[in-house]
Amino acid sequence: MMQSVNPHATTPVVFVGAGPGDPDLLTVKALRALQSADVVIHDRLVSDEILALVGPNTRLRNAGKEGFGPSVTQNAINAMIIEEALQGACVVRLKSGDPTVFGRLDEELDALADADLDFTIIPGLTSASAAVAALGQSLTKRGRNSAVRLVTGHDMKGYADQDWRTLSASGQVAAIYMAKKAARFIQGRLLMHGAAPDTPVTVVENASRPDQRIVAATLSNLPAKLADAKIHGPALLMYGLAPRSAAVALPQIQEMI
Amino acid sequence: MMQSVNPHATTPVVFVGAGPGDPDLLTVKALRALQSADVVIHDRLVSDEILALVGPNTRLRNAGKEGFGPSVTQNAINAMIIEEALQGACVVRLKSGDPTVFGRLDEELDALADADLDFTIIPGLTSASAAVAALGQSLTKRGRNSAVRLVTGHDMKGYADQDWRTLSASGQVAAIYMAKKAARFIQGRLLMHGAAPDTPVTVVENASRPDQRIVAATLSNLPAKLADAKIHGPALLMYGLAPRSAAVALPQIQEMI
Repeated sequence: MMQSVNPHATTPVVFVGAGPGDPDLLTVKALRALQSADVVIHDRLVSDEILALVGPNTRLRNAGKEGFGPSVTQNAINAMIIEEALQGACVVRLKSGDPTVFGRLDEELDALADADLDFTIIPGLTSASAAVAALGQSLTKRGRNSAVRLVTGHDMKGYADQDWRTLSASGQVAAIYMAKKAARFIQGRLLMHGAAPDTPVTVVENASRPDQRIVAATLSNLPAKLADAKIHGPALLMYGLAPRSAAVALPQIQEMI
Repeated sequence: MMQSVNPHATTPVVFVGAGPGDPDLLTVKALRALQSADVVIHDRLVSDEILALVGPNTRLRNAGKEGFGPSVTQNAINAMIIEEALQGACVVRLKSGDPTVFGRLDEELDALADADLDFTIIPGLTSASAAVAALGQSLTKRGRNSAVRLVTGHDMKGYADQDWRTLSASGQVAAIYMAKKAARFIQGRLLMHGAAPDTPVTVVENASRPDQRIVAATLSNLPAKLADAKIHGPALLMYGLAPRSAAVALPQIQEMI
């Protein structure tokens, strides 16, 4: 039986959102969970600064999965969580960002349900929130857009088949996750559906971290800008949003970081 | 010139996301900002528990706006922020949820820019994150949906004209804000576009607060369920999502809260 409805319940497993990377963007509740856990099973993308916040007797276990590299399988991660919980450990399963957004959370919840183990979810800030704050912009704006989408550029079948047609209209805003490799595909789809070539698209790499970088681009020059900037960290494409203040040129923005 | 790019900058005005209501869902950074502010200008929806966390010498000013009741005008709020900042106060502008999501943030940022005042944005958890965690569900799920929308049921022109057609397809997920009064309109639009009448829609009232309530409904019985439940607090419609575990019937869910 799940007890996720009561966020104060004590459950053998607590899923915790680590947020975008800045340890100060952890919630108070997440910080407490990290400090009281017997074991923290974490993803590769969780920053060292956050892992340093666990309690003195907390064990860390890396369940890191790289997008295209060698990885711990999802089944092995499920087994690791269940094994720890059945041994009586207070388990925190720490996922970067918000575990409910592109976090493959359901696969782990299903495994826990099959093992008859309770859980709680402590939500975290998804990186789009940190990215848009860094731009000085809003995800929604009266008179511009009354809806915003969080979409992935890449899914289990390859480049994700999103509703690019609707997104190609003027004033649309989307945060596109896992989009670096798919950037040229996304550009092609949106232009094909009639999106304006000068639609702003801003790349935010390592949102909220000390090495955060902001690269202002447009739909037409996005692949070139991405290549020039040599983006290696986790990056979001903020479609439809430019950094606030058109007067601030790109080199100045990079200098401000 | 804005300095929103550097989240550690000291600026005269700091916009802070208060999150969905549970004070433990404030970020560490937001909590520090509340404790060090000279004045906190807050919305009506920010909970008393959060307002109790401000520093001992911090003044509180209410800029509360009710959806349909008497309200402080946006211009008056802008003037209040600017007046405090020009008098040298360290101003926190506290908005419920994430200020970048349906927060009318841009109007205040534009006013600050006109007054040549710098600002920083500390993002907050939007209520959809807390609501979906309470359901034990994810906003995105492999094989179901690789995109999620945050939409409003109501905008400045009345019932919001969203892309109901795309949302009517199977497997779509959206968090619909400000949807109580628009529920019958939304139901009609989605059914007209062919959405299945048994599509789950779960109402989450006062997400993350002690008085949180979860009402499981479907598209076909949504207006009736809303009326029966007498939802008075801020509520989100979680379209396409049912509370996890089909075996848990509604009365039990309400009991668990």
